Parts: sequence; C-alpha cells; structure tokens
Amino acid sequence: MAVYTEVSDEELDAFAAGYDIGEVISYKGVAEGVENSNYMLRTSGGDGIYFLTLYEKRVSPADLPFFLGLMEFLAGRGISCPLPVHARDGAALRMLAGRPAAIVTFLDGVSVRRPRLQHCAGLGAGLAHLHLAGVNFPMQRPNALSVKQWRPLFLRSAAGADTIAAGLAGELDAELQELENHWPQSLPTGIIHADAFPDNVFFLHDRLSGFIDFYFACNDTLAYDIAICLNAWCFEPDGAFNVTKARGMLAAYQTVRPLTAAEMSALPLLARGSALRFLLTRLHDWLFPIEGALVKPKDPLEYLHKLRFHRDITGPGAYGIDT
Amino acid sequence: MAVYTEVSDEELDAFAAGYDIGEVISYKGVAEGVENSNYMLRTSGGDGIYFLTLYEKRVSPADLPFFLGLMEFLAGRGISCPLPVHARDGAALRMLAGRPAAIVTFLDGVSVRRPRLQHCAGLGAGLAHLHLAGVNFPMQRPNALSVKQWRPLFLRSAAGADTIAAGLAGELDAELQELENHWPQSLPTGIIHADAFPDNVFFLHDRLSGFIDFYFACNDTLAYDIAICLNAWCFEPDGAFNVTKARGMLAAYQTVRPLTAAEMSALPLLARGSALRFLLTRLHDWLFPIEGALVKPKDPLEYLHKLRFHRDITGPGAYGIDT
Repeated sequence: MAVYTEVSDEELDAFAAGYDIGEVISYKGVAEGVENSNYMLRTSGGDGIYFLTLYEKRVSPADLPFFLGLMEFLAGRGISCPLPVHARDGAALRMLAGRPAAIVTFLDGVSVRRPRLQHCAGLGAGLAHLHLAGVNFPMQRPNALSVKQWRPLFLRSAAGADTIAAGLAGELDAELQELENHWPQSLPTGIIHADAFPDNVFFLHDRLSGFIDFYFACNDTLAYDIAICLNAWCFEPDGAFNVTKARGMLAAYQTVRPLTAAEMSALPLLARGSALRFLLTRLHDWLFPIEGALVKPKDPLEYLHKLRFHRDITGPGAYGIDT
Repeated sequence: MAVYTEVSDEELDAFAAGYDIGEVISYKGVAEGVENSNYMLRTSGGDGIYFLTLYEKRVSPADLPFFLGLMEFLAGRGISCPLPVHARDGAALRMLAGRPAAIVTFLDGVSVRRPRLQHCAGLGAGLAHLHLAGVNFPMQRPNALSVKQWRPLFLRSAAGADTIAAGLAGELDAELQELENHWPQSLPTGIIHADAFPDNVFFLHDRLSGFIDFYFACNDTLAYDIAICLNAWCFEPDGAFNVTKARGMLAAYQTVRPLTAAEMSALPLLARGSALRFLLTRLHDWLFPIEGALVKPKDPLEYLHKLRFHRDITGPGAYGIDT
C-alpha cells in the first residue's frame, strides 16, 4: 500500500481542470498498489468519482500507452475494467507532480481475501472473456517477465538464494534449465492480464465485477495466464491445492473458450513456470528491498511450495480437468 | 499515512450488515491518519459513501465515546464534521477485526497544502463557531497533553535532546519552568479541537467545509486552541511568521467570539506553550520511533523555531491584533 507522491490541492485542481469531470471536491490517497501512487477523487461533475494514478519509477513510461490503450479497448468490448478518461486535449496520459498520470473511471466491487469456488469459477469465465476480447488489440507488448528473463533475474539473486532455503539456488537452476528446454512455443497467444491475483479482481455479490491493474498485461501464451491464476487462486492458506476450485475455474473458462489438447497438456509446465516467475521476483525483492518502498516484500517460499506441487503431479488431470 | 489493520471483505460485510447503509460495494484503505486505520466505503444505501475508522493502540478506547459523542453533538449544532453513524443496535462504536471501530459520514472538501489568507480567516471563524457550539457538551475529557504533562514528556526525551540541537535540553527545561509558573488558569475554557492543523480542516472553493480528526479534542482553555492554529497556519515554509494571516485569523475569530483582554494578553504565552507541546511530542517520536509506524517522524526543530519566535515578541500586537 502506498502513496509515493503527495499531490497538493493546487496541483490537483490545475490538473483536473483539463478534464470534463467538474471540480475536485475530495481526494484521498489510497493505501494499495505496489508500483504506483493512487488517489480516489470525488468531483462535482461526470461520474462524481474517479481513480487517479501517478506512475512511479517501476513502470516504464513507454509502456503506458499500451496499458491505457488496452483498458480502453477491453472496456469497449464489454470487459469490466477501469476506462481511461481523456482530457479535453484528447490525451489520456498527462503529467502531474512530475509523474505520468491518468484518471480512470472508478470500478465498484471488492477483492476477496479468501476466494471460494464461485469466485474461482467467476474468474475463470472472466479471464476467458478477457482473452477473447483482447484479440485484435493492435498494440504489442512482449512479456517482460517470461522464460527468457528468468535466468538473468535468477542470477541476480542466486548468491543469496540459499540464505532463504538450503539448496534453493541449485533447485532453481535445475528448474530453469528444464523450463527453458521445454517451454511451449506454439500455443495460442494473445493479450494476457499476467497479474490476475485476487486483489486485482473485483466481485459484487460473489459475481465478478471487473479486473483492475493492467500494468503487467502483455502478449503471451493465453494458457500461461490460466496457470498464473491456478497458483494465485487455488491454493489454500495452509498450502494445500484445492482441486475443486481448479476444476471450477477451468470448467468456467472452457464454457467461454475451450482449451486445445496442447494447452491442457502444457498446463503443468506453464504452472511451474508461473510459480517460478513469482518466486524469482519475490526472491529478488526479498534480497534487495527497494529503498523507500512502503510495502513489505512477500514470502518467496510460498511459490517454491507451489512450484514443487506442479513438478510432482503426473499430468493436467491433477487440476480436475478431463484431457 | 497508514492502514495498520487490514479488513477482509467477509469481516466488513458482516460489520456493515449491522447498519442501515446498504451493502458495501467498494472499500479502499486510505493513506492518511497517523493513529488509526481508515477506509472509504461505497455502499448501496444511505449516503452511498462513508468513512470507516479502526482505532489502533495509540487511542485510548475509554476516550472514544467522548470523541464520537462530541462529533455528534457538534454536527447537531451546525458544525460541519463527520457524523458517527449508529448501527441498528444503537451503538456508534463497535468492534471490527479486533479493534474498536466506527462508521462516520463522509465529509467533502480538501485540505490545503499552503494556506492562504482566506483559509486562515475561514479557519478562524470556523474555530470560533466550534468553540461556541461545544458549550454545554456534557462529557469531559481533560487535555492529556497540557502543561502538567509536558515535564514528564520532556524528561523521557531530555537525555537525547542535545543530539537534535546543542543546548536543547537546557533551553526546554528553562522554558518549561517559565510556562509552569505562568500558565494562565482563569481564561475561558470549553471544548477545543487541539489538533486543527491544515490537514484536519477541509475547504471547498476556499471556504471552510469542515473539521475532521477530533481525536485530541478535550476541555481546555479556548485561546490555547487559537494558539495552536497560529503556529500551524501562520508560519511560512521558510519559517517567517506571516502577521497578515494571523491578523486575518484572529479578526475572523473575533467576529464570532470576541476575545477578552486577558485572552489577548495571554496569547504569546499560550503560543509558546503550544509550540512546546508539539516540539515535545515530535522530539519524543523522533528519539523513540514507533515500531511498525508507517509515518515518518516530523521535524521537532520546526517547533523550536516557533517557540523562540513567540518568546521574543513584545506582546500580542505581534499577531496583528489591537489590544
């Protein structure tokens, strides 16, 4: 949770004057978001409520047109997500307090702390809709955290890895090698959210009300997005894999977009890759805490446990699907 | 800025169900408040927007009925401030996530980073209205940070004081002695806000729209509240005292509640006391940072400078008032 950049009333008034949203009658820094500074705005016009994001150092300014363009594209195709608001000059991305900044529509809904079966199913269907809606999005952004980037990331943490768990460096090295050698290259690709953790998915009355935080979205293997969600949604706090939730998520996904046989077979490997990706970034943030970060690093070992789970299963049947 | 206690969707749903405010359709942790955890709620009923506070360790639970009762009392007498919402069982103070918690109405307005003359005048009039409205509030709460408490507070920091500024311990000791000997005992008393800094006062279109954060409110000398505001509103960032702002604040105050001659004469001493009070708490928080605090300690020397200013003036005329 974070507000890295404080915005003064005068700066905000001047900024908001460029939009057709009325005057700012209240704004509050929001204690969420690891990468950016966020404010809720109440205004005297438009929707009366908006969300303002100032993009901090960890987000590349060059990627912002992709993220904002994608939200607008998806929102135009029926996906519930924040819609960037264009200023009167036409721009959705402007500068505030020395940072790139955007106002987006406010999305109702709450993120669920402990997802239940219906949430996993809702997410599954929603993710499939998102994948279909992203087809034909004209901009491209390669995944900056996929298999090719894992080894350099690993090497930065390798020396410290064994301080987190004995033998971790060796285990990760072997895992990396296997994933690099067998990473699937010909599965269906498209726009993936790439960070659809429970805190980035909203529900109202246990029904999915939208996705937020598209700042890892990219072009990649669609089934890899599913693998990320299997890891983020289907393990219980005690580490147990909940196959009922996985089955519910995958079945709901397939009511919208059926998986190919190749996608199903690849799921265990994709899930290992996804587990490794979050393990590596968490390991890095654990070993090299960011100066001035307002967020505690997350435990990397949670994802080591998940990685091992997927390595030990015999096939995608372990996720409750019929292949 | 802080959210010390994370509230899950399930806990919040169960909590909100006790109120006539509809269902929670969104909630966001707010990055403000040094002492407590705060959330903005959007709901499907009532006002549609509320403010939820969970009271953390630094606020004494025994004081909460006073604070909430005061807000309700003042709101009922035309003071714009958050109004505690009573649950269906009648209680305004309940438990959430193991903490005392209250829902209050949402107050529009923004706090001004750099108060201008009209803000100081608006505050002056607003403070006088607050003082008048507080008359007859039936509950009592002595000021826990007044002249009697300053020496014990000083003694906890005395050993470290000279690490902040050479000779500081001696200077504070002498100042304390003088204030203890001459602290006014017979000025008009009543309810004071005691923390009406610019971040606790809201404006809309440069007119005061309300007061928030009553968690230092207490019974004390009314003019002491003015002295706090002189220090908090009338010094420029470079340390200069802006007598025009002080004159505007005091004149506006007196249009609502004229000061007695004794109050005017006492202002320099009260302003020294107020400066010392914030100096001492800041000094303490600087020397003994709170474990897990999400807020940076504030510079104690800002208030040493203010203290010296008030000690060096010849009388209340320095504040731009005719005595």
